[in-house]
Amino acid sequence: MKWTNESGYPWCRITPAESFFDHVVQHDTRPGNWRWKDVVAGLHKLDEDPRMDSERRYVAIVNDDAGLGETPGIGITPTLFCGCQLIHPGERVTSHRHNSVALYFIVQGTGELEVEGVTERYEPFSIMTCPAWHYHEWRADGDADTLMYVIHDMALHAYTRSLFWEEPKGQENIRHVVKGASHTWTATKPLEQSKTEAAKQMRDQGVPAK
Amino acid sequence: MKWTNESGYPWCRITPAESFFDHVVQHDTRPGNWRWKDVVAGLHKLDEDPRMDSERRYVAIVNDDAGLGETPGIGITPTLFCGCQLIHPGERVTSHRHNSVALYFIVQGTGELEVEGVTERYEPFSIMTCPAWHYHEWRADGDADTLMYVIHDMALHAYTRSLFWEEPKGQENIRHVVKGASHTWTATKPLEQSKTEAAKQMRDQGVPAK
Amino acid sequence: MKWTNESGYPWCRITPAESFFDHVVQHDTRPGNWRWKDVVAGLHKLDEDPRMDSERRYVAIVNDDAGLGETPGIGITPTLFCGCQLIHPGERVTSHRHNSVALYFIVQGTGELEVEGVTERYEPFSIMTCPAWHYHEWRADGDADTLMYVIHDMALHAYTRSLFWEEPKGQENIRHVVKGASHTWTATKPLEQSKTEAAKQMRDQGVPAK
Amino acid sequence: MKWTNESGYPWCRITPAESFFDHVVQHDTRPGNWRWKDVVAGLHKLDEDPRMDSERRYVAIVNDDAGLGETPGIGITPTLFCGCQLIHPGERVTSHRHNSVALYFIVQGTGELEVEGVTERYEPFSIMTCPAWHYHEWRADGDADTLMYVIHDMALHAYTRSLFWEEPKGQENIRHVVKGASHTWTATKPLEQSKTEAAKQMRDQGVPAK
Repeated sequence: MKWTNESGYPWCRITPAESFFDHVVQHDTRPGNWRWKDVVAGLHKLDEDPRMDSERRYVAIVNDDAGLGETPGIGITPTLFCGCQLIHPGERVTSHRHNSVALYFIVQGTGELEVEGVTERYEPFSIMTCPAWHYHEWRADGDADTLMYVIHDMALHAYTRSLFWEEPKGQENIRHVVKGASHTWTATKPLEQSKTEAAKQMRDQGVPAK
Repeated sequence: MKWTNESGYPWCRITPAESFFDHVVQHDTRPGNWRWKDVVAGLHKLDEDPRMDSERRYVAIVNDDAGLGETPGIGITPTLFCGCQLIHPGERVTSHRHNSVALYFIVQGTGELEVEGVTERYEPFSIMTCPAWHYHEWRADGDADTLMYVIHDMALHAYTRSLFWEEPKGQENIRHVVKGASHTWTATKPLEQSKTEAAKQMRDQGVPAK
Repeated sequence: MKWTNESGYPWCRITPAESFFDHVVQHDTRPGNWRWKDVVAGLHKLDEDPRMDSERRYVAIVNDDAGLGETPGIGITPTLFCGCQLIHPGERVTSHRHNSVALYFIVQGTGELEVEGVTERYEPFSIMTCPAWHYHEWRADGDADTLMYVIHDMALHAYTRSLFWEEPKGQENIRHVVKGASHTWTATKPLEQSKTEAAKQMRDQGVPAK
Repeated sequence: MKWTNESGYPWCRITPAESFFDHVVQHDTRPGNWRWKDVVAGLHKLDEDPRMDSERRYVAIVNDDAGLGETPGIGITPTLFCGCQLIHPGERVTSHRHNSVALYFIVQGTGELEVEGVTERYEPFSIMTCPAWHYHEWRADGDADTLMYVIHDMALHAYTRSLFWEEPKGQENIRHVVKGASHTWTATKPLEQSKTEAAKQMRDQGVPAK
């Protein structure tokens, strides 16, 4: 049973709550296990690709179950994005910021994390955090590759449509990560058509969501 | 490109973050408009069904766009469930509780809201709230039907798999609303197979999520 | 017992989890009841102040219990801001946007809500929503004052430091509502010193948070 | 200016939104850095206390800035609790569950994690997750101590008053972690007076929150 909202928009439904409740209840999530050798293998595969620089040599660690309905998860848990990044000594990840809060766990390597003009050294097994909307830049040094797990509350903010990103640094690159079209986190690679444009066309045509 | 997590579970992916980011970015949400006459029409349709008692004479007000990926929204916004309830004078909605916080806007009617043993009268255009996990019971009186909008942060808790419900009152009816199977919010109507049982079977068979 | 994080920052604690858990557990929230005549009285008091224009003729509806520890709530529930706004016929609330999602309940009055270039009429008892980061503008008409309840997931975004605001419309007014100092939601009234500047000074001086 | 809600409860305020907005804006969070040698030192200090068994040999890693207003943070970020746990070979952390989702990063050691009847081995640098409300039990083996970082979305659920815990396993130990009083996560150590009882007394006396 799917009722029409006669006077409003077709994607705005008025429906019996009791039968709707079954859609509210989510399927259960299975536990996750990602072994280090598989994470490292993924990073090494990316490292063979010459287009992948220090910003992009990054694997996402995802639980397909942590999504909504039939849509696979957009993170390792419903609220959290988790990734692992490889930075070679001498490389940097240039300054950028986002309104998700980041937590870093250094697995290997040494170097510097600069947050809003203050620099701290990092070393294996340290936990570091970068607050929301703080510019931060990584610089790896020493002899060993830097390998770190990165955890953000980005899945929560992507789901609630509140996520902002600025990369590279620059007022013109501040983007709301729904309306500001881009295939990736850097603002330099726009989509041909933004999701917002698509939504506007759907609205003008009165198309209900799938 | 979808990489295998060789040593772990097949639903646990390790994947290039850059291409994965496109899945993180959600489509835009179109604005919503639900007119009162359509809400009331929905409630009157439910009222004609003799199986619908005061607990179940409830419409959900949903924005299909407020979901994740292709999955339609489970609320009026990504975090909020909104419904409208009709209670006839002399009826009650018996005591129950949930760990979502509820906000009520009374459109019409008078009566009592009892929260954890303390009773307050309600009247048109009042705003009332019921804290998480407080028992509450509605009793309509006067001459007019009670009509009220109900707003919960239930969509957030359903998405994060943290939602709990106890209805009807009774320790044996405390349910985590993922693992405790039920087609509706009352514990008295179990599913034939719970979503948890389904997830266990998938895990034992190593089935990846869709 | 409060341990020093010897090598890190003094506001970064390492502490026994068991005794810390008592700080994690929050006090209970008492139920809320705000009657319409008190809400209207508050709005009329604001209306007598000639400095209060249509943007600012707004009361916040707050539950002091919905905060963290001793800090009073910043909303009507831990996740939700609730306010009530009064707009006289012929007035407008000019275009602005925020990354919190807004839900409107019209109590009285008629007029137009324009969201990203599309205009809908509003009427009493309608529910309307404005998605995150959509420009929107209100224009009241008819004979009666417009009175509406406004509900945002703003308390959640303020707590997680993810809130953005742009008011008035203009790229130069996009503000992260922690780092972009302002006493109010419009960018035109800056604080003498921003909270970010204060935090930087504290960091440079190694001052622990209270 | 603090207005009275004449007809309602004294903790339910109606107040000018513009001046209230200054309370909504949170102070900035300073970045965090917790070095491994300090984390380990904290764990070894706990290990000297014979009352600290495997469940309780746990340090919390906290950023004081990540709270609300003057209240210090209840996690490492506004949404996340982070801890580090030490389990000696041969010890176990017996079965329990919570509706926060847990993410584990194994720094050192080997052993087994059993989640809802299925056992996986763990090894250094693996990432593992335990879904909301799944029973889980740790068993350390091998020669080295197990040291692991544990990250939960517990700070989010504590703030929103949605947190549930069951420890030790047993229907009678299911607790809403606001109303079910306990100084720690195990249900076996009740407070002399629960926060709920305190809130009820305040309500009966009409006491406003501080």
